[in-house]
Amino acid sequence: MGRAVTDRRSGCPISYALDLLGDKWTLLVLRDLLLMNKRHYRELLAAEEGIATNILADRLKRLEAQGLINREADPRDRRQLIYRVTDKGISLVPVLLELAAWGARHDEMTAAPKAFAEEFRTDRDRVVARFTDRLQDD
Amino acid sequence: MGRAVTDRRSGCPISYALDLLGDKWTLLVLRDLLLMNKRHYRELLAAEEGIATNILADRLKRLEAQGLINREADPRDRRQLIYRVTDKGISLVPVLLELAAWGARHDEMTAAPKAFAEEFRTDRDRVVARFTDRLQDD
Repeated sequence: MGRAVTDRRSGCPISYALDLLGDKWTLLVLRDLLLMNKRHYRELLAAEEGIATNILADRLKRLEAQGLINREADPRDRRQLIYRVTDKGISLVPVLLELAAWGARHDEMTAAPKAFAEEFRTDRDRVVARFTDRLQDD
Repeated sequence: MGRAVTDRRSGCPISYALDLLGDKWTLLVLRDLLLMNKRHYRELLAAEEGIATNILADRLKRLEAQGLINREADPRDRRQLIYRVTDKGISLVPVLLELAAWGARHDEMTAAPKAFAEEFRTDRDRVVARFTDRLQDD
């Protein structure tokens, strides 16, 4: 996940994105932060896919180091930490939604609501804006 | 990369997509097949990021097993094999383009042409259609 010039595999923007995000668990943590509105460590740990606490802690640290999330005191309870996505993180919403739409389309056993796939197909921009606006107002 | 029911981590469409694609090299191979129009093994092996031949062979095998690509005799030289993306594979074009746009936007040292990022921002649908149509006519 290095960002130093010497670590670069190429100048390709996809390779750049994958050097930061090319990990199953990282993208699932981003799903929970970007689409599921989770903010607390315990909520992220409760993901249905069964993420281990050491993997979650590691991925949150990397996401913070890459400037995709910030760790802050919860305004409703200063003893608690929350994770908030930055603008750089929010700009990943279209990537995650395209992944979701692709999975919903090709997975016969998908748990995604039919309405999501249908709305995304007919009015993609509105779906992207809804998720993005909610995060920006957060 | 298992697809059996018992292997499923959840019914989440993003988790489904990542179980198939959650690997840096897989996504770079898909980049070359979907966006760079590469068809031959030797072209894929020449990727700037330096993929190892055993990794490339493994990822192509997985992509074929998942129904994302087919292996065929090259119509121009029947002794040669080419890899052709299926409709299921082609439907990943928006995911790859969103990843590219995100990388181009956030990577100061990106090699992506400025024109790509600009056109994708102002007329995303046209860019998606251009890549998709080229693959479907192929």
